[in-house]
Amino acid sequence: MKALYFDYNATTPVLPEVREAMLPCLENNYGNPSSPHGFGLKAKLTVSEARNRVAALLGAAPEQIVFTSCATEANNGLLRGLFPEKGAHLVTTAIEHPSILAPAAALEARGVEVTRVRPNRNGVVDAQTVLDACRPDTRLVSVMLANNETGAIQPVGEIARLAGAEGYLVHTDASQAVGKIPVDVETLGVDFLTLAGHKLYAPKGVGTLYARSRRTLPPLLLGGGQEGGLRGGTENVPHIAGLGAACELVRNGLEREISRQRGLGEIFDRELDRLARGVGLDVLVLSRDAGRLPNTRFVGFKGLDLARMLEELALADVAVSAGAACHGGETSISHVLEAMDAPADYAGCALRFSWGRPTTEQDVMDLMQRLGDACQTVRSD
Amino acid sequence: MKALYFDYNATTPVLPEVREAMLPCLENNYGNPSSPHGFGLKAKLTVSEARNRVAALLGAAPEQIVFTSCATEANNGLLRGLFPEKGAHLVTTAIEHPSILAPAAALEARGVEVTRVRPNRNGVVDAQTVLDACRPDTRLVSVMLANNETGAIQPVGEIARLAGAEGYLVHTDASQAVGKIPVDVETLGVDFLTLAGHKLYAPKGVGTLYARSRRTLPPLLLGGGQEGGLRGGTENVPHIAGLGAACELVRNGLEREISRQRGLGEIFDRELDRLARGVGLDVLVLSRDAGRLPNTRFVGFKGLDLARMLEELALADVAVSAGAACHGGETSISHVLEAMDAPADYAGCALRFSWGRPTTEQDVMDLMQRLGDACQTVRSD
Repeated sequence: MKALYFDYNATTPVLPEVREAMLPCLENNYGNPSSPHGFGLKAKLTVSEARNRVAALLGAAPEQIVFTSCATEANNGLLRGLFPEKGAHLVTTAIEHPSILAPAAALEARGVEVTRVRPNRNGVVDAQTVLDACRPDTRLVSVMLANNETGAIQPVGEIARLAGAEGYLVHTDASQAVGKIPVDVETLGVDFLTLAGHKLYAPKGVGTLYARSRRTLPPLLLGGGQEGGLRGGTENVPHIAGLGAACELVRNGLEREISRQRGLGEIFDRELDRLARGVGLDVLVLSRDAGRLPNTRFVGFKGLDLARMLEELALADVAVSAGAACHGGETSISHVLEAMDAPADYAGCALRFSWGRPTTEQDVMDLMQRLGDACQTVRSD
Repeated sequence: MKALYFDYNATTPVLPEVREAMLPCLENNYGNPSSPHGFGLKAKLTVSEARNRVAALLGAAPEQIVFTSCATEANNGLLRGLFPEKGAHLVTTAIEHPSILAPAAALEARGVEVTRVRPNRNGVVDAQTVLDACRPDTRLVSVMLANNETGAIQPVGEIARLAGAEGYLVHTDASQAVGKIPVDVETLGVDFLTLAGHKLYAPKGVGTLYARSRRTLPPLLLGGGQEGGLRGGTENVPHIAGLGAACELVRNGLEREISRQRGLGEIFDRELDRLARGVGLDVLVLSRDAGRLPNTRFVGFKGLDLARMLEELALADVAVSAGAACHGGETSISHVLEAMDAPADYAGCALRFSWGRPTTEQDVMDLMQRLGDACQTVRSD
């Protein structure tokens, strides 16, 4: 039985083109980019070429791109750097990823004030509400671009326009959005943007922090002065090369891939509807009325036992997430479902299905077959 | 002409066995270790197996190993975490890597007191002097195990014994030592130890922070709770797998490889001597009378022009370092040479030669041939 991987929002495979770009760095291109000899220069050029490619995907200039080891490092470093001591105010949302929420809580414990704007029932925050939360001592507004669980796209462009006009710095964690929808830093108008390599077919262990002006960004790590002094530590050349290739890959034909993935979503919706009617099951697609990522469906199955569903799906070789995937095997109702006031009888068994470039129509049809079987088995327990 | 890479202290190539361990993670083993399904479990097992291998090399328990993105992250995180606010006292040395010296300076700017113990003329700090620098408010003693430029081994075991007996926490940045000499956390008796993957044939972009007790280590990054809550961020599974394989590789037959590399050092010394006498050149091997890494020679060439030497060696396809390699192309006298009061007429043209497992006797002989030619060309400029 073919394994059906429907957990692309948790992580993606490394695509062959990405791997190809990495392999030379695991073979002969092994120099330290800081070394003043041929091996070093070659590695330095590799990093530089990758930086151009990442910048091109985001509509940024290469010097605005700082490579990090992951989105979590970028988010932690930005919050830590902008709030070095107590006082000042951070505006964020109740549906951010833990890599924002956890450091925000740590800042709060240290005396920084934090406002967490709640979303509506569709899982979307209101731009004006975010602006209204800002105060004279607000130092940063941080709102994710697309939610990892629901796929709901947040009005970051509008937030940046409103808040930017009043002089606030705006950050967006675009980890789930880049590579899935067009993300252009000029169109968005943000000051900072976080990108996660392993959500767009680059390997785990590389990310990017975009900074409109390097002067507003405190150093993430201090050491050998790499990344123009903003992130010390020998560059992860293979992963950076991979991230460059991944950005190049998703940039080419993004619109075509988006419409293909939307098509998979339509099949998903149609088949889910058919399944529900066939089995006599009550389902709720969360954030249904919001603008969403083309690859994500977060579905509540009324009255089904989550643990049993996961068990049956595992037996059927179907990989999906319950709640948010990255957070250590917890199956309690996620903070996102809670913040959006999702109806408890659906939220108790909510599964996230997310697909990607390798996913085919047949995969979606097979998924639905196995999902239907699982629902029936669990219902008849 | 075969390129002669004598810059293993800057970075090492990824050895084939290491690459082999990584490749599955760039192919089918692509799950997120936090995902509760087969793909996730497989990745989780990969991380766990690698942790066992790293622990085995260091004589540690697996739960004492925290994976990081590099040694710089480990060093920064430890210092930042142990000194969250002003006050308290840090004892370190004047010859540490910038990934200790730079965050230490940042702490100092924030009101932490920092004592930097200076080494003797052999580039070695005295254990009793380090202890004498400790005060009731000393929160950490951080002394590198082997210096990256001179290769001089510092008396970390003795420091840990003396300082530990008085209740001080002791850290060692063992980035240049692990894989080159036996490094056992129990023998050393340290509380924290930093390891850099790319100095021991793993790829750039992975490191380890050993912590004797997890309770004394503040979280390095906050997010999804990975690494037992000590380092959030999706694990860099391919690099972690590579680091595990690298640790396994260097652990097997370490003594044999050490004696082989010592042999290369003897050839180096003999041929350098012959070269100097033949060309009528005055050379000084720094830290000659110290216990040194078996793979490192830091040599001052009296009266030669450093830039020209580097140029000639580059033309001859010889990769070496001047000063410290990782610090961005600076050719001024390094902080290490300065701290050990190296004679200025030698320090002005100091080259670091460092070799590794792939280096052969023939490579050393070829190096000396090309080095001799370069010296003669530069002298007759």
